[in-house]
Amino acid sequence: MVWQKNYGAPGTSPGTLAPPPDAASHVAVTAVHYTAEDYTETTVTDLQAYLQTAPRNGVLWFNVDGLGDVEILETLGAHFGLHPLSLEDVLHIPQRAKLEDYEHYLFLVLHMALMGPEATEETEQVSLFLGPAYVLTFQEQPGGDLFETVRQRLRQAHGKLRQSGADYLAYALLDAAIDGFFPLLEDLGDRLTTLEEAVLARPTRETMEDIYTVRRTLIALRRILWPLRQAVQTFERDDSGLVTASTRVFLRDCYDHVLQVLDVLENYRELVTGLMETYLSSQTHHLNEVMKVLTIISTIFMPLTFIAGIYGMNFKTEVSPWNMPELGWPWGYPFSLLLMAAVALSLLVFFRRKGWL
Amino acid sequence: MVWQKNYGAPGTSPGTLAPPPDAASHVAVTAVHYTAEDYTETTVTDLQAYLQTAPRNGVLWFNVDGLGDVEILETLGAHFGLHPLSLEDVLHIPQRAKLEDYEHYLFLVLHMALMGPEATEETEQVSLFLGPAYVLTFQEQPGGDLFETVRQRLRQAHGKLRQSGADYLAYALLDAAIDGFFPLLEDLGDRLTTLEEAVLARPTRETMEDIYTVRRTLIALRRILWPLRQAVQTFERDDSGLVTASTRVFLRDCYDHVLQVLDVLENYRELVTGLMETYLSSQTHHLNEVMKVLTIISTIFMPLTFIAGIYGMNFKTEVSPWNMPELGWPWGYPFSLLLMAAVALSLLVFFRRKGWL
Amino acid sequence: MVWQKNYGAPGTSPGTLAPPPDAASHVAVTAVHYTAEDYTETTVTDLQAYLQTAPRNGVLWFNVDGLGDVEILETLGAHFGLHPLSLEDVLHIPQRAKLEDYEHYLFLVLHMALMGPEATEETEQVSLFLGPAYVLTFQEQPGGDLFETVRQRLRQAHGKLRQSGADYLAYALLDAAIDGFFPLLEDLGDRLTTLEEAVLARPTRETMEDIYTVRRTLIALRRILWPLRQAVQTFERDDSGLVTASTRVFLRDCYDHVLQVLDVLENYRELVTGLMETYLSSQTHHLNEVMKVLTIISTIFMPLTFIAGIYGMNFKTEVSPWNMPELGWPWGYPFSLLLMAAVALSLLVFFRRKGWL
Amino acid sequence: MVWQKNYGAPGTSPGTLAPPPDAASHVAVTAVHYTAEDYTETTVTDLQAYLQTAPRNGVLWFNVDGLGDVEILETLGAHFGLHPLSLEDVLHIPQRAKLEDYEHYLFLVLHMALMGPEATEETEQVSLFLGPAYVLTFQEQPGGDLFETVRQRLRQAHGKLRQSGADYLAYALLDAAIDGFFPLLEDLGDRLTTLEEAVLARPTRETMEDIYTVRRTLIALRRILWPLRQAVQTFERDDSGLVTASTRVFLRDCYDHVLQVLDVLENYRELVTGLMETYLSSQTHHLNEVMKVLTIISTIFMPLTFIAGIYGMNFKTEVSPWNMPELGWPWGYPFSLLLMAAVALSLLVFFRRKGWL
Amino acid sequence: MVWQKNYGAPGTSPGTLAPPPDAASHVAVTAVHYTAEDYTETTVTDLQAYLQTAPRNGVLWFNVDGLGDVEILETLGAHFGLHPLSLEDVLHIPQRAKLEDYEHYLFLVLHMALMGPEATEETEQVSLFLGPAYVLTFQEQPGGDLFETVRQRLRQAHGKLRQSGADYLAYALLDAAIDGFFPLLEDLGDRLTTLEEAVLARPTRETMEDIYTVRRTLIALRRILWPLRQAVQTFERDDSGLVTASTRVFLRDCYDHVLQVLDVLENYRELVTGLMETYLSSQTHHLNEVMKVLTIISTIFMPLTFIAGIYGMNFKTEVSPWNMPELGWPWGYPFSLLLMAAVALSLLVFFRRKGWL
Repeated sequence: MVWQKNYGAPGTSPGTLAPPPDAASHVAVTAVHYTAEDYTETTVTDLQAYLQTAPRNGVLWFNVDGLGDVEILETLGAHFGLHPLSLEDVLHIPQRAKLEDYEHYLFLVLHMALMGPEATEETEQVSLFLGPAYVLTFQEQPGGDLFETVRQRLRQAHGKLRQSGADYLAYALLDAAIDGFFPLLEDLGDRLTTLEEAVLARPTRETMEDIYTVRRTLIALRRILWPLRQAVQTFERDDSGLVTASTRVFLRDCYDHVLQVLDVLENYRELVTGLMETYLSSQTHHLNEVMKVLTIISTIFMPLTFIAGIYGMNFKTEVSPWNMPELGWPWGYPFSLLLMAAVALSLLVFFRRKGWL
Repeated sequence: MVWQKNYGAPGTSPGTLAPPPDAASHVAVTAVHYTAEDYTETTVTDLQAYLQTAPRNGVLWFNVDGLGDVEILETLGAHFGLHPLSLEDVLHIPQRAKLEDYEHYLFLVLHMALMGPEATEETEQVSLFLGPAYVLTFQEQPGGDLFETVRQRLRQAHGKLRQSGADYLAYALLDAAIDGFFPLLEDLGDRLTTLEEAVLARPTRETMEDIYTVRRTLIALRRILWPLRQAVQTFERDDSGLVTASTRVFLRDCYDHVLQVLDVLENYRELVTGLMETYLSSQTHHLNEVMKVLTIISTIFMPLTFIAGIYGMNFKTEVSPWNMPELGWPWGYPFSLLLMAAVALSLLVFFRRKGWL
Repeated sequence: MVWQKNYGAPGTSPGTLAPPPDAASHVAVTAVHYTAEDYTETTVTDLQAYLQTAPRNGVLWFNVDGLGDVEILETLGAHFGLHPLSLEDVLHIPQRAKLEDYEHYLFLVLHMALMGPEATEETEQVSLFLGPAYVLTFQEQPGGDLFETVRQRLRQAHGKLRQSGADYLAYALLDAAIDGFFPLLEDLGDRLTTLEEAVLARPTRETMEDIYTVRRTLIALRRILWPLRQAVQTFERDDSGLVTASTRVFLRDCYDHVLQVLDVLENYRELVTGLMETYLSSQTHHLNEVMKVLTIISTIFMPLTFIAGIYGMNFKTEVSPWNMPELGWPWGYPFSLLLMAAVALSLLVFFRRKGWL
Repeated sequence: MVWQKNYGAPGTSPGTLAPPPDAASHVAVTAVHYTAEDYTETTVTDLQAYLQTAPRNGVLWFNVDGLGDVEILETLGAHFGLHPLSLEDVLHIPQRAKLEDYEHYLFLVLHMALMGPEATEETEQVSLFLGPAYVLTFQEQPGGDLFETVRQRLRQAHGKLRQSGADYLAYALLDAAIDGFFPLLEDLGDRLTTLEEAVLARPTRETMEDIYTVRRTLIALRRILWPLRQAVQTFERDDSGLVTASTRVFLRDCYDHVLQVLDVLENYRELVTGLMETYLSSQTHHLNEVMKVLTIISTIFMPLTFIAGIYGMNFKTEVSPWNMPELGWPWGYPFSLLLMAAVALSLLVFFRRKGWL
Repeated sequence: MVWQKNYGAPGTSPGTLAPPPDAASHVAVTAVHYTAEDYTETTVTDLQAYLQTAPRNGVLWFNVDGLGDVEILETLGAHFGLHPLSLEDVLHIPQRAKLEDYEHYLFLVLHMALMGPEATEETEQVSLFLGPAYVLTFQEQPGGDLFETVRQRLRQAHGKLRQSGADYLAYALLDAAIDGFFPLLEDLGDRLTTLEEAVLARPTRETMEDIYTVRRTLIALRRILWPLRQAVQTFERDDSGLVTASTRVFLRDCYDHVLQVLDVLENYRELVTGLMETYLSSQTHHLNEVMKVLTIISTIFMPLTFIAGIYGMNFKTEVSPWNMPELGWPWGYPFSLLLMAAVALSLLVFFRRKGWL
């Protein structure tokens, strides 16, 4: 659950970087270097050495999977001249999505849906540094991710990605992360449709729990995506010189996608509210039905049982002719049965008139 | 249902255009060309050929019904120099309504109510490109549409449309699309009136379902129309030189209509909320009525049955004078009946005083 | 009901003016002409003729009651050079309140409470054209209206109205229209007070319906008045040269009144929400009371009836001394009655301790 | 009740000033004149005479208690050159709080809690005119007021008030009025605490009425104070030259107090909403408790009574051995009692397992 | 409880400083003086003397624990030239968080979580004065506080704190105060998780009270933190020259943390609303269950008891063959039992079909 993450006090010990409490110790660093002509992908084991021999032309992209190894972060920070505060933000999880301008580089924090065999609501934090000719990305979790599609496009020599600079790569990564929310939305939409049918047809206790769970997921997603909207807008309007005009058009498209996701979320939130109210009214309706059955049964059988009770009394008929003469009538019993039937019938007519049957 | 549309990840494979998953394969292209003097309407089968021989003066309007044929889109895009991002947006459904300025043309996304034999809540996405002397429109669904009225006006030689440029045509199409929402609103208004009467008179389970359905329709419509508001405003204030001052006045009117539609929607939403609450309170009222009947019946017959039960006991009167002497009284039975009548009457008086009768 | 008005598609046939569907055919045109010295009031039958002979100095005010005669509108439009869009807006009902600047005139749409023998929630649309030396007003309904007070003030030679220009007349009419909402508010306030007492004292089904009706009226009024706020503000800040600085101060006062009306409406809306919740909780309280009575009665009489049932069993006492020896006790009957009394008493004590009595 | 005040149509008869409908006829005018050296306090009976002999140096403060005497207002208006609109606003009650700049003077409308032996929610409207060297205040109600503390500070020769100009006096009066809301807030806070305890412990019908009353008071207070916020801000930022820079710092403090009051009100409103919901849920909880008792009692005694009813049947045992042989068993009666006990016990166990006991 | 604090009228006696009503009389003053080289920490008893001998270079930080001694405040105010309004604000509790620019110093009011053995929701007000080379902090409560971590960092000669000026110290203190809210959030998150489980599994009356308490805490926290957001933003953008550019970057980080706290609070508030609704619906669900049991039991046993009542009637079989011949049937009793079993079975089948079992 997103909102149950540990809100450890950030910045309690500034100056020293520490990995998040539950970070896996294994960290994988992948370096991608490309120009319009070349493309190399390296799994880096000795970061120091790689940095010294790294090519100076083209675009360099380091992707770090896992936050358990602080040294890698420090090495990269020292090499690219990153501000301590931005390094701290990489490790302090969770952060709000944001774009910060550190003059010679941009620092972007966002969240990305974890890719798995099926749609899941788990997200991880991604920190992205965009410099003049480099991009650094730090992911919370190792393993398969949405950036793979970007890598595939990079491998194609004639793609626009290979012809463009680091800013376009940053856009492509951001775009991949944002588009990764659409399958989640579709999954939530399906769950809402199911819930809708359940609420209107035969709501159970599980329906209520499901509604609550979907609502909580929506709240968590909105909390992640709402600040992202502003971050992308700031990115698009950035005037640090790191973003070219042609990439700006693509960032506008990105911003559009974020708005679309937020629109759908807002939509879903209203639907969930409506579902909850409908569920409640459905329950009250059900209660009404139950109470009607009880009332009809009670109202019919109470007078009948009363009549039977009357003729079960033991007044002595021999003492006086006023004492239960009906008991001695030849047609007493049929008379009493007819009386009961008449009472029951008139009550049924009364209920039908009231529209309860 | 609008919100149940497939939220396929947009832009997952940039660079290659693909039709939406469920697009019909049949695509109809209609070309309209007009000047103040001429008007020709052509059903285009060979787009390439048509474009090469297309007249250079006057206004050219291509209307594409259906999104299943990517080639048409690519041909038009190449001929008019359209940005790949805007072409992608034509195919990625659903988009938010928006106006984007691509310097030499404007790109407008909006939604249009599907015209049918009766008012329906189905909408389709319309993409509109406005260039200096051309308008391109792409509709999701083939078949009868709201643009027919514009075509009819174009056919009249003396209409303002024929005298004006492409921007006025774009306005006319936008206006037709927006005005197409008014019958929908009227239909929703009628349904609300019916629901209102049902809620205040005799609410049933169907009433609740209807309220929920109307609410969902309102949410979906607002989601479509809210961004349109901003798009039309941006259109009106556009300073790309593609919109003339005289058309601007008409766009202001258009903006006014969007505001009016949104006003009515907001209005309806509040009414639906009020209806739901009233429905719930109506149900509780009904429950109260049912429970009152049950309580009155139980309260009257339980004491009566108890009295009958007393005199149905088998204590032996012969053993002592204290054992149920009433059974041997000459007036025992009438006395017991009177006792019961007295109890019932006093209870009825009690209930009347409580205002339950 | 305001919101049930016909939302006929506006602008479906631009270029041709058509009266609203349910417009009365009878239309009354009143022309008022005044300078500081003169005042004439004419019921115009031949508009064409009147316009040709109309005085050129002073202020000219045409008031048209009823929208059934399109010709009058066209004649005035041609004479004063009014834009077709503004003429269409006069006929397309309902419009949002708005102020539009057409350079040589201002076009104001607002709504006005219908004056009748008693306060009513019916409103009509008023369209007002303000030119350099003329004012045109179009009212939906013929008959007594709030503008009569303005006419009375005009007839007085020394009033400020007679000394001022057309802009001050427009202000005076606007002010009269806005002030006409105050009696409505007072009436709504009275109804809320009545409802409040009803909800707290003895709520019935009618209370609920009344709450719903008041809420609907408030929604409708707010829909009418919210855009008026902006229109009046635009009017006050207008820089077309048609509004003098001294009138501007009075328009600020007008704006203040609109804010005040909106404040009160917002206030009422919150009170209505509170009333509805209190009504619901009042119903639940009532249900609790009913259920308590039922539970107390059932809980007391069920054990008693059970005891009576025990001694009504027919086990043969002669077969063994274990078979219902109580029946043969000399004090059996009094003992059983005492037992019942004891049970009933202890239950009453239990209920009193629970606070249910 | 604040919101039940008469919303008489303001401005229906412009040009003539009329006192509010229910204004007391007695009006008290107090004139205070002070310089750094002098301080005089006069109860004015002949206003005309006083104005002619009034000192020209120092600050002059007229306080008018009661709005019944229009002549006083006209005299002051004529003497200080006040705009008719602002004079009207003094008499038209209630007004929204506002600050209006009439170039040579500022006009401030605010509301003030009425001071009494105990905290009350009654407020009165105060109109304040601030000129270069004078302050005029008009209060709705005569009698003890919050301005007394300002007068006391004025009487001290060395106070900052005596050293400063009219603008600081206006600030001091405004500050006194705003600070007068704090005891009200404290009182409301106490009531909320009491209600909170009542709702969580033993909610009654009175609790609900109290919640509603507090909510209504909060709505009314917010309506009064929300526009005051803007008025004070406008006052602080005023650039008419009537407010000195040093007073501006104090007005900032004033603004802070208004924000604080509004914060607390908003806080209370949310608490009241929470209380109402908790109250409703508390009622439902209570209903559940009542229903459980009823269900347990019914479920236990119905089977028992049924068994007793079985053995109360009159089938003739002598006819066949199948007819109720139990009646003839030596241990028949104890057996039936044991049967009943077993049934009752197993039901009790069932309820305990369900957690209802 | 935060919101139950005494809202004593602030500023009722301007000019004279008075301690808050419940201030402890013991006040501890700690002076910290540091340069890059030196660090001294003094518990000040004679403030006057200390100020005269205080070093002129480096940064001076006075921390005052407790507000009971007005003289200390006055001494510091006189020495550093603090405005009376800001001194008053130190003593008037509670204040809204704010930053005020008094030209030669900045005045910041904020709130800080009280540190104790376990997470608590108690907060205290902290007033902070930032001058060119001094920082003054006033805390409401004496005792262990969050500033201790700052002191520890100051004691380290090589920390950034020792190298920087007073503005960085102010930042560090502000940061410590803000970060102190994170453990509170975590604690609230844990409570929400517990409540969530309780609501979905087995909600009790205590669950409701807990939900209400958490909601109230969230309201109180938001009231404290919402204005802090603006204060920190104003601090970051301050152009008084007291804040250096490098500190500004850190303040941006601070602002980020406040936003994060507010995000989480907003998140929690929505979750609490969802929990309350789910709780209510859970209660209604429970009521439904109870009522079903009652209805099933009543519906089954009422007809059975009625049948038993029939055969308990005393009609004389000897008078006529129509009078209860069943009593004389050899299989009468088994027949009646079978009849009852048949009735009970068919009712059970009916309930199973209705899905109530």
